[in-house]
Amino acid sequence: MIIVNTGNGKGKTTAAIGQIIRCLGHGFSVCLIQLFKGESFYGEQKILTRLDNFNFFSFANQHPYCAKNISIDEVKKQCVLSMEKLRNIAISKKKYKLIVLEEFNIALRDKFINENEFLSVIRNLREKSDIIVTGRNAPKKLINIADLVTEMKEIKHPYNNGIKFQKGIEY
Amino acid sequence: MIIVNTGNGKGKTTAAIGQIIRCLGHGFSVCLIQLFKGESFYGEQKILTRLDNFNFFSFANQHPYCAKNISIDEVKKQCVLSMEKLRNIAISKKKYKLIVLEEFNIALRDKFINENEFLSVIRNLREKSDIIVTGRNAPKKLINIADLVTEMKEIKHPYNNGIKFQKGIEY
Repeated sequence: MIIVNTGNGKGKTTAAIGQIIRCLGHGFSVCLIQLFKGESFYGEQKILTRLDNFNFFSFANQHPYCAKNISIDEVKKQCVLSMEKLRNIAISKKKYKLIVLEEFNIALRDKFINENEFLSVIRNLREKSDIIVTGRNAPKKLINIADLVTEMKEIKHPYNNGIKFQKGIEY
Repeated sequence: MIIVNTGNGKGKTTAAIGQIIRCLGHGFSVCLIQLFKGESFYGEQKILTRLDNFNFFSFANQHPYCAKNISIDEVKKQCVLSMEKLRNIAISKKKYKLIVLEEFNIALRDKFINENEFLSVIRNLREKSDIIVTGRNAPKKLINIADLVTEMKEIKHPYNNGIKFQKGIEY
């Protein structure tokens, strides 16, 4: 099954994390490949990496939009490495129940990852694993081939009322 | 902060679970009070209950809509007990960073919990904890006092294509 969490609201990543925990709770194997997030900033990383049957790969620590001093070429290289990892998982004998591709929608939107190549890899992968792709602006072709698409829609957001980015909530 | 995850789409519960994991990862204390879910069916329960700084309370194992043989009086009694628990947490010296109230929107919608009483308790509680309330059909008054509201909106759902309820995905 291909699952997409998109939209401008909160909950795209946390829903994927909750789904990982749900799967691990039943003893399934899970893999998380994430882009633009760094390896130790987020609270969930500290818990997940301690759990059995969980593999974690992180590429391109920051998005150029958030860190202006980052070279776009370096980000692209990192995204190419993430696709290499994904292709290796697709052809490997190891069978994950769930593979989460964090912020890949953003990498597709910004053309750091080639859309047709991505679609072709996950079309093969869906035969053996459920796949969750997160991030705003999910591409139309991905939505077309997905089984389950949820838009996290912002109804009210605290930044608009001056409440700040909080440890334990945003990261 | 009061956070509401509502809407007809997937991800309301899993986003709350992800948020719990994020908080626990930073060493914060978290409490989950859940309705209508039972104590050991969901994968996440098996992981969460093993983690430090996490307290779990479950009331009203099933919703009468899903289990026709359940007495509505018994469900109401259980919901009253869940509110008693919540009031005790509100007046206790113990300070949780995050309190998740799973499916309380449903109990409010179905009048198993009195709306004004609920709002008054969480208004006090927000001074010391962040609170996430999940479930479809969040009441308007709750949305009015909330800081962060996300609608999980179904764009595409696999049941519509004949894909079945799956272990590790739905539970």
